[in-house]
Amino acid sequence: MKALVYHGAGKKAWEEKPMPVIQKPTDAVVRILKTTICGTDLHIMKGDLPEVTDGRIIGHEGVGIVEETGNAVSNFKKGDHVIISCVTSCGKCENCKKGMYSHCADGGWILGYMIDGTQAEYVRIPHADNSLYPIPAGADEEALVMLSDILPTGFECGVLNGQVKPGDVIAIVGAGPVGMAALLTSQFYTPAEIIVIDQDDNRLEVAKTFSATHTINSSKENATEKVMSLTNGKGVDAAIEAVGLAATFELCEEIVTAGGHIANIGVHGKSVTLHMETLWSRNITITTRLVDTVTTPMLYKTVLSKKIEPKQLITHHFRLDQVIEAYDTFGNAAKEKALKVILTA
Amino acid sequence: MKALVYHGAGKKAWEEKPMPVIQKPTDAVVRILKTTICGTDLHIMKGDLPEVTDGRIIGHEGVGIVEETGNAVSNFKKGDHVIISCVTSCGKCENCKKGMYSHCADGGWILGYMIDGTQAEYVRIPHADNSLYPIPAGADEEALVMLSDILPTGFECGVLNGQVKPGDVIAIVGAGPVGMAALLTSQFYTPAEIIVIDQDDNRLEVAKTFSATHTINSSKENATEKVMSLTNGKGVDAAIEAVGLAATFELCEEIVTAGGHIANIGVHGKSVTLHMETLWSRNITITTRLVDTVTTPMLYKTVLSKKIEPKQLITHHFRLDQVIEAYDTFGNAAKEKALKVILTA
Amino acid sequence: MKALVYHGAGKKAWEEKPMPVIQKPTDAVVRILKTTICGTDLHIMKGDLPEVTDGRIIGHEGVGIVEETGNAVSNFKKGDHVIISCVTSCGKCENCKKGMYSHCADGGWILGYMIDGTQAEYVRIPHADNSLYPIPAGADEEALVMLSDILPTGFECGVLNGQVKPGDVIAIVGAGPVGMAALLTSQFYTPAEIIVIDQDDNRLEVAKTFSATHTINSSKENATEKVMSLTNGKGVDAAIEAVGLAATFELCEEIVTAGGHIANIGVHGKSVTLHMETLWSRNITITTRLVDTVTTPMLYKTVLSKKIEPKQLITHHFRLDQVIEAYDTFGNAAKEKALKVILTA
Amino acid sequence: MKALVYHGAGKKAWEEKPMPVIQKPTDAVVRILKTTICGTDLHIMKGDLPEVTDGRIIGHEGVGIVEETGNAVSNFKKGDHVIISCVTSCGKCENCKKGMYSHCADGGWILGYMIDGTQAEYVRIPHADNSLYPIPAGADEEALVMLSDILPTGFECGVLNGQVKPGDVIAIVGAGPVGMAALLTSQFYTPAEIIVIDQDDNRLEVAKTFSATHTINSSKENATEKVMSLTNGKGVDAAIEAVGLAATFELCEEIVTAGGHIANIGVHGKSVTLHMETLWSRNITITTRLVDTVTTPMLYKTVLSKKIEPKQLITHHFRLDQVIEAYDTFGNAAKEKALKVILTA
Repeated sequence: MKALVYHGAGKKAWEEKPMPVIQKPTDAVVRILKTTICGTDLHIMKGDLPEVTDGRIIGHEGVGIVEETGNAVSNFKKGDHVIISCVTSCGKCENCKKGMYSHCADGGWILGYMIDGTQAEYVRIPHADNSLYPIPAGADEEALVMLSDILPTGFECGVLNGQVKPGDVIAIVGAGPVGMAALLTSQFYTPAEIIVIDQDDNRLEVAKTFSATHTINSSKENATEKVMSLTNGKGVDAAIEAVGLAATFELCEEIVTAGGHIANIGVHGKSVTLHMETLWSRNITITTRLVDTVTTPMLYKTVLSKKIEPKQLITHHFRLDQVIEAYDTFGNAAKEKALKVILTA
Repeated sequence: MKALVYHGAGKKAWEEKPMPVIQKPTDAVVRILKTTICGTDLHIMKGDLPEVTDGRIIGHEGVGIVEETGNAVSNFKKGDHVIISCVTSCGKCENCKKGMYSHCADGGWILGYMIDGTQAEYVRIPHADNSLYPIPAGADEEALVMLSDILPTGFECGVLNGQVKPGDVIAIVGAGPVGMAALLTSQFYTPAEIIVIDQDDNRLEVAKTFSATHTINSSKENATEKVMSLTNGKGVDAAIEAVGLAATFELCEEIVTAGGHIANIGVHGKSVTLHMETLWSRNITITTRLVDTVTTPMLYKTVLSKKIEPKQLITHHFRLDQVIEAYDTFGNAAKEKALKVILTA
Repeated sequence: MKALVYHGAGKKAWEEKPMPVIQKPTDAVVRILKTTICGTDLHIMKGDLPEVTDGRIIGHEGVGIVEETGNAVSNFKKGDHVIISCVTSCGKCENCKKGMYSHCADGGWILGYMIDGTQAEYVRIPHADNSLYPIPAGADEEALVMLSDILPTGFECGVLNGQVKPGDVIAIVGAGPVGMAALLTSQFYTPAEIIVIDQDDNRLEVAKTFSATHTINSSKENATEKVMSLTNGKGVDAAIEAVGLAATFELCEEIVTAGGHIANIGVHGKSVTLHMETLWSRNITITTRLVDTVTTPMLYKTVLSKKIEPKQLITHHFRLDQVIEAYDTFGNAAKEKALKVILTA
Repeated sequence: MKALVYHGAGKKAWEEKPMPVIQKPTDAVVRILKTTICGTDLHIMKGDLPEVTDGRIIGHEGVGIVEETGNAVSNFKKGDHVIISCVTSCGKCENCKKGMYSHCADGGWILGYMIDGTQAEYVRIPHADNSLYPIPAGADEEALVMLSDILPTGFECGVLNGQVKPGDVIAIVGAGPVGMAALLTSQFYTPAEIIVIDQDDNRLEVAKTFSATHTINSSKENATEKVMSLTNGKGVDAAIEAVGLAATFELCEEIVTAGGHIANIGVHGKSVTLHMETLWSRNITITTRLVDTVTTPMLYKTVLSKKIEPKQLITHHFRLDQVIEAYDTFGNAAKEKALKVILTA
C-alpha cells in the first residue's frame, strides 16, 4: 500500500509500505476513505518531536472502512464505516475507566506518532472497540473527519474545561482550526458574547461567520485593553488558549475575570510566566488537557442532528496521493486561507 | 478603647482609639472576647502591604459579643456571641450571590486592612448579618476563633479546590497554620495517604500527630523524588501549596499526577514558572482562591459534632493587652514552635 | 391606588386599596408598569389555596419603577426600572446562602400569596436588594416580565434539574407557558431532539415554531409507545413534567431511559404512583423544585444578548384596569390560544 | 466440580457440575477461595426471580485465583488473586463508557442470575479485564469479599447518590448488611450525625458500634417524629433507603429536609406512593441505582489504607461445602444475629 512516511526532519515521502496486519485480538485494520493534516503533523515533519522515528507513517485523523478485525473485537466487523479517534483507548486501565483516555496505559495519542498512522491507504487500529466510532449509512463522512481530533479537542480542552455556561462572556485566543472548533462547540452552551483574538484578519473574518460576537486583531490593537473595554473592566468568564505560546497564555491571565477559567488547548514548547502575585487571590482555575475523545459520541449526536456543521472547517480538498501538495497548502495556512484540508482516497 | 495600631513599616502600638460606631443600618459593633494573629498581619506590620495606612487597627479574626446593631440587622442582637468572619459579605452583589464573598462589591477582605480590625476591644462589622456567625451557649469559643480565617482558608482553597476524594493520595506543601488547617480538614474526605512537606522538623512532628501518613523535610531530602517513590512514580492526586513561594509552587507542578489538582493557598509576592511544556498534556487543574468563608456554617457543624478539633492548632495564650508580646512570639514561629496564638480580652 | 383583590373562592374585584408603604429598612415600593397572570393565580381565585385570605392583592410577576426605598436598600433607588422576582429572598438565611431562595426563612414565594402582590398600581417588595433585578435603559420591558417567574421556573426546575446536555433526547410533557419556557431554555444546552407532548394541537403547533423536533398529542396517540419508537426503545435522557398530574408524572416514569432524569415542574395536588418495582434498578434521578430564581441574572444576560426571545410567549395584551377581562381570556387558554397575557399600567 | 445449584422455588443442592470453560477471548475462569450469600440469593431461592432457571449456579460475590484466561485478557494471568465484581462490564458499550456498568449491553448483573455464579469451586467471568480487580500479596482476602457487592452498593447507591457532605445529618433506614455498608462508607464524607432506623435492636446495637450517632427502633417509636425532634424540625439532608418496602420509602419522604436527597438502595417488589402534593415544592432529589461497581478501585484504596474495615460486617464462617447450612443461618439473620457469612473453599 501507499503511505506518507517521515524520514527525519524535513524529509517525507509518499511511498510503498507493507499492508498493516492484525497483531492482537483487539486490533482492527481500516481502509482509509478520508484523512486530514493536523498542526502537530507539521511539527513532526519539522523534527520537533524527536520521539518520532524514521519510517513512521504520519496522521491521526480519518474515516474509513473496517477491513479486518481481531477475534476479540465485537463492536465492529468487516465493511463497517468508522471514525478513527486520534486517541487510542484500551477501556480497561485505571485512566480509561476514569474517562481519561489520553493517558491510557496502552494507548493515548500514539497513532501517527509512536505507531503508524492514517495518512495511508490502510491503518492498524489497536483496541478497536474503544478507539473507533460507527458511522451510519448516509452520513456526511467528510464532515465526520473533524470528529477524529479537532472537534473533541476544542470542545473538551476548551469548552468543557472552560466551563462555558449560558450568558457567559468568553474569549478564544487563536483562530486556527482548533480555536475555530472551540468557537463552534462553545455555542452548545449559549454564551452571551464570544470574543475571538488572532493576528490574521482573514481568520477573524471567518470567526465572525461562525458567530463570534467580537474579534480583535492583537497585532493591531492592545487585546487586553480591548477585552476590558468590552467587558466593563471585568474580564471574561473563560479564556481559551488555542495557540501554545507564552504571550497568548499571559494574555489569558490578564483578561480572565475573578472566579473565571483559563482553559489551555495549545501545545506549548516552553514554560510560561504565571503571575501568582496577582492571581493568587482571584479565584481562578487553569486547566490543561490532552484530548480524551470521551465526548466523541456526544459530539456525533450533535452533528447528526445538525446542531453543528463541522464541514464549515474544511477549506481545501486533495486526493490522498496529493498529500505532499496538501502539506504545502496547510503549511502556508495564512497565505492559503486554509483551516482543514481533506484528503480523499 | 484600646487597640493595636499600625504606624508604618515596623511600627505598631497598643493605644487608645475612639470606640467604633454604627455607620450604616447593616453594621454591628462587636466587643472582642478572643482574637489571634495571622501571617498576613506580620506582612502588614513589615510594610509589605502599602495600601494599609498609618493609624489602621490590625486583625481580621476573632469571637466576641454583639454590642450594638444597625436597624437593618436582623440575624443578631445585643448580647449574642458571634464568630467574626475575616471576609465581609454584603450578600446582595453578583459575587456574593455566587458564593464568592471574597470578591464582594462592598466587602471581601477589608477587616484590619482597609477598615479597622479585631486586635482591639471593639470592632465595627459591616454587613453584619452576612459576616458574623452565631455561637450557641456552651461552645468552646477559643476553638471557634479558628473559624474566622484559618479553617475555611485551608478547607476552601486547599481541600475543596484540590477536590480531595476518598482513597486519594495528597501532598500538603507547607506545615504552617494554614497547611495544618488543610491537613485537618482534608480528612473530611478520607484520603488514603497525606504527605506533608516542610523544612521544620517540629512542624512535621506536629503534622504526624494530626494524622499525616508521611512527612518529608525538603531541606534534607529531595521532595520530588521522595513523593515519586512513595507513589510508585505516579505523583499525587492533589498538591496543596500552603507557602506562597515559586519553589514550593514548582514542587507542586513536579509531583502532581496526570489528571490531578494543584490547589494554591499561599499568598504569593512574585510570579512563578509554569512548566506548560510538560503540563499542557497532563490534564491538570490549578486553582487560586482568596477564602470566601462560604463553608463556615458547614465547618461549624463539624466542630460542634467533634469531627474536628481546631483547638489543636493553638499553641500559645496571651491577654489581649499583651498583643505586642504575642506578635514577637508568632513572629518567631519556628523557634517558639508556634502555630496559632490566642489573645483573650 | 387600584388593585385586583381576592375576596374568597370565585370572587375578585378591581378596587381601591391603600398605597403600600415601607415597613422595614430593606423594603422598596415599586410602581407597576407591566404585569401578567400565572396559572397559580387561577388556582388562588378558585379557592384552591386556602391560606390566601380575603382582601389579598394577587400577582407575583411584573416590571416597574422604584418609587421609594427603605434606608438599608443600596442596590436600588427611586426611579430605577426593575424586574420583580416572584420569590422573595433575604440573602442572609441558611437557605438563601445556599442559593435556595424558594425556602428563604423570611421570604420564598409570598408575593400575591401571603402578602399583597403585583396586579396593582403599586407593590411593596420586601428584601428589595435581593428580590429585584435592574433593567437598563432601552430594554424591552414587556419581554422581561417573563423573567419574574416563568423563565426561571422552566429553566431551573426543568432544564437545570433535568441536566439537559448537548446531544440529549428530551421530552417535555405539557406545552403550557411553563412547558414552553422549558422548551425555549432547554436549547441553551443544545439537545439533539426535543419531544413535546400535550393534548392541545394548537400548543403543539406553537411548540414546533419554538423548535420542538417532535410533537405528540397524547389524547390521540399512545405517548409512551411513540416516544419509545422515536428513541429506538431507549427512552429519553430527561423527561420534564410541566403539568402536575399523576398521569403525566407516570408517563415520565415510563419514558425515561436508564441513567436519565425526571424533572418535575408541575404543581401537584395529589400523590402519584412511583413504580419502584421497575425503577429501583434504572439509575434514574427524580427532582422537585419550587423555583429559586437564582438564575435570573444568567437568564437576563441571555435575553439581552438575544439568545432567547421570551416575548414569543406573549399572546395577549390588556390594560391593567382590564385585568378581570384578562383573567377570562387566560382562564380559557385553550380556546383563546393564550400563553401569557401582558397587563400594562 | 461442586457448586450450589438452583432447582426451582425452594429447591437447591450442592452437587457436581461441569468445570466452566473459556467461551470468548475476553473470559477468565477463576477458582473460588471465598464467597458469601446476598439477600438477593435468598429471593432467588424462594423463586421470586422467575428469570433464574433450573440448573443455575447461584452467587455473585467472591475472591479467587485466576485459573485460565482468554487470549484477549491482558490485565490478569493464571495465578493472580482477584476480587470478582457482582457486575460484569464489557468496558466498550455506551453505558460502560459512561461508568454505568450496571446497564452494560453485554453484562450488568448477570452472575449467579443469567449465567452461572460464584457459590461454586470455579466460575467463568466474562469480560474479565473489566470485571475483576487485582489483590496484592498479603491482603486480607476475606475482608475483600465485601468489595464484590455490598460495599460499592451501599456507597454508590446510598452515599454517593445521597450526596453526603461534611456536616450533614443523614438517616439510614434499614440496618441489614447493605445499610451497614452505607453506614461505614458514609463516614468517608464526615457527616455530623448519622441516624440509623431499623426494627431489630441487635442490629441497632451493631450500628452504634459502627459509629451511628442515633438509633431508632421504628417498631417501638414513631420514627418520623423522632427524626424531626433530633433535627429541630428540619429533617435530614440525606435519607438512605436500604430496605425495599413502600413503608420505609415513605418514611424517607417524610424525614427529608427541603433541598435534601432520598437515595434508594432497596430492591422493591411493588410501587410506592410519592407524595408530590407536598414534595413538589421541597426541592428534593430522589435517586435509584443498581450498583455499577465503578467505585471498587477507590473503595479498595480505602480498605488498603485502613480507612474502613469491611471485616466488621462478617459475623459467621463456613466451609464452602457447608453452603446449605450457611443459607439456613443467613436466612434467619435476625435470630442468628447474622450480617455477612463467609464461605471458604
